[in-house]
Amino acid sequence: MGRTSTARERLLDAACGLMLSRGYGTIGVAEICARADVRKGSFYHFFESKQALTIEAINAHWASQRAGWVATLRGDGPAEDRLERFFLDQAAAQHTARTQNGAVNGCLFGNLALEMSTQDAVVQGRLAEVFDEQIDLVHATLTEAAEQGAVPAPAADRETARAVLAQLEGMVMFAKLANDPSVLDGLWAQASRLLRS
Amino acid sequence: MGRTSTARERLLDAACGLMLSRGYGTIGVAEICARADVRKGSFYHFFESKQALTIEAINAHWASQRAGWVATLRGDGPAEDRLERFFLDQAAAQHTARTQNGAVNGCLFGNLALEMSTQDAVVQGRLAEVFDEQIDLVHATLTEAAEQGAVPAPAADRETARAVLAQLEGMVMFAKLANDPSVLDGLWAQASRLLRS
Repeated sequence: MGRTSTARERLLDAACGLMLSRGYGTIGVAEICARADVRKGSFYHFFESKQALTIEAINAHWASQRAGWVATLRGDGPAEDRLERFFLDQAAAQHTARTQNGAVNGCLFGNLALEMSTQDAVVQGRLAEVFDEQIDLVHATLTEAAEQGAVPAPAADRETARAVLAQLEGMVMFAKLANDPSVLDGLWAQASRLLRS
Repeated sequence: MGRTSTARERLLDAACGLMLSRGYGTIGVAEICARADVRKGSFYHFFESKQALTIEAINAHWASQRAGWVATLRGDGPAEDRLERFFLDQAAAQHTARTQNGAVNGCLFGNLALEMSTQDAVVQGRLAEVFDEQIDLVHATLTEAAEQGAVPAPAADRETARAVLAQLEGMVMFAKLANDPSVLDGLWAQASRLLRS
């Protein structure tokens, strides 16, 4: 059956959508099922708990986002241009979210990190892995940029890659607070300052 | 009665403590009252709603934090030294939280901003005002640093002050995720890169 075969994906989509817009703690399995149009009894056929669904939702969201990050950061052209494109993409994604949903929802992982890090060690552990992968991806492109002479070697370390992603998360927070994606329009100018030694 | 006279402050302290460590949506008035050792009937003598308490808790937390920020950012000595001291203070505060509570709780305003911006316009509005005040305080010290020749004039604008606070919020997120305040030890090095033109 078409509906049954997509029920798992619908549950993941519903969970992602709810977790982007609301606090995790207020979202129940019944609401996720209602939004996904899946019977509550079927939920436990796919996921043993809300926590298990959350891990899979994080994985699905990151798999999708990661594909875009890899395409940009490991694409063609000079590494510095790819970094710039990456930051422009991040701003564009929040502009799109604002247009489509009426709200800058921010970053699923950032939202969950602030709410759940002290509350759920399994979710915290998976989020830490995702952010580590993000830092690794940016670090690899920074390293290329340094090899190409566009970034000084001391600014191509992992610490700088983390700092650059912290700038992204902090500015996304301010964009979400203002519900205004144009807050992110200066992101590359700021991030590129972090890439000086 | 001593207990009655401090009940309002105990409710505010309890709300701040709970909101630092957990998602807002999971915290109920009954739990706040229990933690504050105040009867639930008394709660509504002081606050007409959880939202009203939240606004007062934000105000109380910011009044306390603001005093420290003003003392450092408007204190004696060169403006650039005060900015450095400010960032060292932020890292030290999370080290203290880790030691006292066993957890890096992060920033109350950042936690609430990501969870509540799309959910409660009154809380969102007050948080936006607090962050604007924070940006203004940093901007004023940046302006002094530029006048003293320590920071190039183009990097002493309000946009840079916001970027510097975004760096702080993003790095606090990573420190909370890792429950490791030493994540913040490079904060001044990063922020000072943002202060170049």
